[in-house]
Amino acid sequence: MAIISDKKLSKNITKKDPDTTPKIVKNVISSSEPPNPAKDLAAERAHTNWDLKEMHEFLEGNEAKSTEILRLYQSIERDPKLQTRPEQFDLTQKEERQLVAERINQMSRYIEIESYTKFRRRLQLMTVIDPSMGIRILVNLGLFLNCIKGNGTQKQYDFWAKKKESGIIKQMYGCFGMTELGHGSNVAGCETTATFDEETDTFIIDTPHIGATKWWIGGAAHSATHTVCYARLIVKDVDYGVKTFVVPLRDSNHDLLPGIAIGDIGAKMGRQGVDNGWIQFTEVRIPRFFMLQRWCKVSRNGNVTLPPLEQLSYISLLEGRVGMAADSYRIGARFTTIALRYAVGRRQFNKSGSTQETQLIDYMLHQRRLFPYLALTYAAAVGTDRLEEEHTKLLSDLDKGLATNDKFLLKNTINATKSMFVDSGSLKSTLTWEASELISECRQACGGHGYSGYNAFGKTFNDWSVQTTWEGDNNVLGMSAGKTIIKTVQQVLNGRKLKNSTLEFLNDAPTLSKAKKAVIRVKEHLDEPERVLKAIAALISKFAVDLIPISHQTWDAISPQRVVLSKLRCHYYLLETFIDRLENRVKANSPMRRPLEITMRLYYVTSILSPFIAEFGRFGVVSPSITKYIIATYPQELCTQIRPYVIGLTDSFQQPDNFIHSVIGKYNGDIYNNYLDAIKLANSPRNHKAPYSAALEDMLNRPSLDTRERNERSKEAEEKLSK
Amino acid sequence: MAIISDKKLSKNITKKDPDTTPKIVKNVISSSEPPNPAKDLAAERAHTNWDLKEMHEFLEGNEAKSTEILRLYQSIERDPKLQTRPEQFDLTQKEERQLVAERINQMSRYIEIESYTKFRRRLQLMTVIDPSMGIRILVNLGLFLNCIKGNGTQKQYDFWAKKKESGIIKQMYGCFGMTELGHGSNVAGCETTATFDEETDTFIIDTPHIGATKWWIGGAAHSATHTVCYARLIVKDVDYGVKTFVVPLRDSNHDLLPGIAIGDIGAKMGRQGVDNGWIQFTEVRIPRFFMLQRWCKVSRNGNVTLPPLEQLSYISLLEGRVGMAADSYRIGARFTTIALRYAVGRRQFNKSGSTQETQLIDYMLHQRRLFPYLALTYAAAVGTDRLEEEHTKLLSDLDKGLATNDKFLLKNTINATKSMFVDSGSLKSTLTWEASELISECRQACGGHGYSGYNAFGKTFNDWSVQTTWEGDNNVLGMSAGKTIIKTVQQVLNGRKLKNSTLEFLNDAPTLSKAKKAVIRVKEHLDEPERVLKAIAALISKFAVDLIPISHQTWDAISPQRVVLSKLRCHYYLLETFIDRLENRVKANSPMRRPLEITMRLYYVTSILSPFIAEFGRFGVVSPSITKYIIATYPQELCTQIRPYVIGLTDSFQQPDNFIHSVIGKYNGDIYNNYLDAIKLANSPRNHKAPYSAALEDMLNRPSLDTRERNERSKEAEEKLSK
Repeated sequence: MAIISDKKLSKNITKKDPDTTPKIVKNVISSSEPPNPAKDLAAERAHTNWDLKEMHEFLEGNEAKSTEILRLYQSIERDPKLQTRPEQFDLTQKEERQLVAERINQMSRYIEIESYTKFRRRLQLMTVIDPSMGIRILVNLGLFLNCIKGNGTQKQYDFWAKKKESGIIKQMYGCFGMTELGHGSNVAGCETTATFDEETDTFIIDTPHIGATKWWIGGAAHSATHTVCYARLIVKDVDYGVKTFVVPLRDSNHDLLPGIAIGDIGAKMGRQGVDNGWIQFTEVRIPRFFMLQRWCKVSRNGNVTLPPLEQLSYISLLEGRVGMAADSYRIGARFTTIALRYAVGRRQFNKSGSTQETQLIDYMLHQRRLFPYLALTYAAAVGTDRLEEEHTKLLSDLDKGLATNDKFLLKNTINATKSMFVDSGSLKSTLTWEASELISECRQACGGHGYSGYNAFGKTFNDWSVQTTWEGDNNVLGMSAGKTIIKTVQQVLNGRKLKNSTLEFLNDAPTLSKAKKAVIRVKEHLDEPERVLKAIAALISKFAVDLIPISHQTWDAISPQRVVLSKLRCHYYLLETFIDRLENRVKANSPMRRPLEITMRLYYVTSILSPFIAEFGRFGVVSPSITKYIIATYPQELCTQIRPYVIGLTDSFQQPDNFIHSVIGKYNGDIYNNYLDAIKLANSPRNHKAPYSAALEDMLNRPSLDTRERNERSKEAEEKLSK
Repeated sequence: MAIISDKKLSKNITKKDPDTTPKIVKNVISSSEPPNPAKDLAAERAHTNWDLKEMHEFLEGNEAKSTEILRLYQSIERDPKLQTRPEQFDLTQKEERQLVAERINQMSRYIEIESYTKFRRRLQLMTVIDPSMGIRILVNLGLFLNCIKGNGTQKQYDFWAKKKESGIIKQMYGCFGMTELGHGSNVAGCETTATFDEETDTFIIDTPHIGATKWWIGGAAHSATHTVCYARLIVKDVDYGVKTFVVPLRDSNHDLLPGIAIGDIGAKMGRQGVDNGWIQFTEVRIPRFFMLQRWCKVSRNGNVTLPPLEQLSYISLLEGRVGMAADSYRIGARFTTIALRYAVGRRQFNKSGSTQETQLIDYMLHQRRLFPYLALTYAAAVGTDRLEEEHTKLLSDLDKGLATNDKFLLKNTINATKSMFVDSGSLKSTLTWEASELISECRQACGGHGYSGYNAFGKTFNDWSVQTTWEGDNNVLGMSAGKTIIKTVQQVLNGRKLKNSTLEFLNDAPTLSKAKKAVIRVKEHLDEPERVLKAIAALISKFAVDLIPISHQTWDAISPQRVVLSKLRCHYYLLETFIDRLENRVKANSPMRRPLEITMRLYYVTSILSPFIAEFGRFGVVSPSITKYIIATYPQELCTQIRPYVIGLTDSFQQPDNFIHSVIGKYNGDIYNNYLDAIKLANSPRNHKAPYSAALEDMLNRPSLDTRERNERSKEAEEKLSK
């Protein structure tokens, strides 16, 4: 497999190959020193003059969270089941599922003895190194139980989560029976039916046709004992729309119950460790009280009540999105660390006539490819930490409001939920997309070695990719967030004033959208983060105002623009948080200040201003005279400025080797020895013949075509046959 | 695994859920009709009013080539080893390697009986559905034998290819020992040594240190009997740079030879079917005449001669790049076909109050995501067909020139080689990147089902990804092509006139780069393809002129811009070819004309003008007043115009189901039945317990924590222990 270049080749066509100029060597073996990438990495670390723990606290939000994370890294690294091993990249689907099952078993022991908050953090970290295990537990604890919590009464929740112990992954295991073969994004279109049979006081769960087959259900194929089933409630021939029901799938001996048909979905792009399944129900009866009835109730004689607060049941969907936004930060941290360590240790070509080849990190294009992702990861860290905080507060307010029946608090919570839908939707979609591209770019930046399984890019990319699709398809989420932004701008123009909303900055839309003067007019303006923030707000306002007239005709026609608005909203959120945290957490004389300031600038210049420059330009928010400076000159200057700090900035993520889980990305930087050792361990060189060697040897040693054809086309044969 | 949306959810927070409005249903089972995507697809086909074979000939270049391809599709589909099967997506690495070995064996039977041109076409098509098999054969026939052909004498080539039968994949199997652990892109930096030992008339091949370990060598781990080894020629303590040597690795019993250490590289992101290996040589002796000596010769007493034409040896690298550019077209055709068929059959959400949900293909955003890739694929088809033709001509001219020692022809060939390096480099890099994004976008456009293994996205993406890295890293190729473009513009400014070069359009650089007036000033200009072509030429010229002064200081600082120039060059090439072929091959009254015209416009508006709009704007090539029209309005209009033709345009690729190899992408459009059937076949629902079920059941049925801890933390124990 040749990974070759023609950097010099095309030149060679017309010029003399420099290697044809002989040079004297004394001793062939010793004349050529082995590469020493570890030394290069150590040299970089000498530049770091800040406290890594302090920077970690900046990234994670506070000291306690930072400390807990570092202790959890240690716990995971030491745990015999949870720790990573290079040979795990060789697992087949069957082996991976075995490992995942053992890890779930192990995790179920921690959930019994540690606080739920700490367990959730453990789970979040494990999700980065074993996304299949992560989602299998999250489907049970996050989706299944959250659905019961959100849609069931307190007593229903207590029964299933506590009495039946599913809250500690015991006795029963839940899956989330929402999507169908024919319905993914449009949940309200689900066609599975739950028909009330008054006579027996049961619901009959049925799959009417192939399109209503429950599909992609994580954990259904082999693990789940129960599902929450999204099905149309039918009572006395009336269709009340999609409600939720707890439906048992397997008995305590783990055998399928009658009427339940289940199969394995089989091969996937990634997440091979998850036993996704399909389910078809044929006349499956469940007791009436297996319906989750916090909001909608069916009485013994078939009276249906639908209280107005049902909408809040959707809050349970937020958790997954908030989590995926945060995952994007940790994945970004992991892969920028790998790619930048490699960029320091790897040397290729000779740029300046020095005796050594040049480190990849000293090539401008390499900096331009990787440093912006490092900066984006810093912005994502602080932004998603804030999102987590706001989400936690929302849930606690809701619990409080419902417990005390505080109507005012509930009304505020509904408002906060609305902006949380926009924020989590736009952060989840924008950051999971960015993370996909980040993994891909970091992989390419490691050249051929990025393609090796043991360096983690491939498996992670595959496991990651589904994040752009599930729990809210990114484009659907983006369109939805964009729509809310446009509507909000319109409301503000009509005189509404936003309060207690993260979208408050849109209160300036009337002024911002009318402003004739560009917000960013000269180069110096680019060093004012508050001004850049204002520029984003101005662009969002002007863009939305421009779209309002069309939106009255058709929302569909402006879908691409709605997704752009959602991305801009995400970046506003991140930058706003970054500015705030830098102002309030980092002292003016802290050695962290300068690297963070450059990081923030690099972030907004390369991830916001530059990619959306055409929009900033056409709406007159940024003066065209500095376009070139924004897309070319300034990013390059900032890359040069940040260059000495990048290893310190990645070390500050504090992810240990076992978590990085990449042989070329280890802390010691001894790339080549680490790499060859791991590969020899995973693939013993003693096996020099493949199991399929016979097929090859038979081919190479085959007799000639004439012989194999019994010489029946020979001259001799021709003579005989022609007579 | 929930793939859910909040298209309506955020609305629901404030508005009454429409589904809480009950609607009467008569009969639960029969009231809900199963989806019928096949009918939708059939309806689309009614719009196609051109001859599919004729369009296929347009794409493939001529009738003979088109016919040969269609016959080969048939041959592959019928061949018991070469045909695809859905369950192949479940293969483990070991099983995949077994299948690949059997397929290579089968291919070796075709090479004995069909023309080499036909065999190469068969191999090219097989490479789309089995890239691992493709590259394993290409390493042997393409890299190994081409290297011998390019660097060896005719007699050396005849010996290894004919006498030793490696040309028909018999007796021996070659691999390509170029890259090392420490050297990928910089081939001239390889550190393996070949030291001449005059006493025994042999070369000693040695790996001096870990960095010089041959790495990534496709076929080395288990298949290859020989390698061409790139090693530094050392004669009498003088280093003559990197030359090539045939080194035997295994004997006729397929056992490793002494001094040869080989191991399996193991897990990779994709191409699991390839046995990539590493090789270390310890004092391996080969006869002097195993050195390839077409250009460089070592005499019996150690005299080294280096003739001037050595540079031509690099021509053998072109073939891979030309092939990968063409692969990009076929992969694009395959995946746009899948995604567009699915977009027609899949319905989700109700846009217009109709009784049926809306087909995905009728959403603006969906059109905007997919149609540009369809258009790009058409441009890539004609452009890469031209590239193939030009490459074939180049090789034949070279053979002719060398055979007749025609100095004039050789000089012209060297010139043509130079532009072929630019063209193949910029097409390979630009199109393999585009194809990666195309697969990824098409996957996302199929929602959750795009993540299923049986729909081919995941495996194809993984197998594909290495194309951006190997045989010329895309960024390195892009920089190289960009550098040549800048230098060429400078030469033209200095008075040079290009002749017999595909870069001739740069002869206008002096005028174009000075022009004050924008080339595209009003909307109507966008309908003039020749003008758009001129606009690209103008942008390349102005951009290059702008970079020339910096290039005199540093090439490194302008690397990102060099890559942009390379992409623009690729698009110039494609559009130029598209215009030419449309003019010369399609009659004015042909029903193909209108769809092709819209396709071409959509291509240049969405793949050229829109993504590079900031550059077109800042160099004054496109008037800023039409920016919005170019990035938003016009693409949308073109999408609407092309909408009725898209199924016809994908059907025209003529790829049969067995080649499409995706259960939701089949011709009949019966998505759901095809999908469920395939999944049931590959994963029998009878296996309702997983092999790892014990781990799960043990967890669920575990005793309580107290019991497992022998009740030693109980109140009772506390009482006793505290006394």
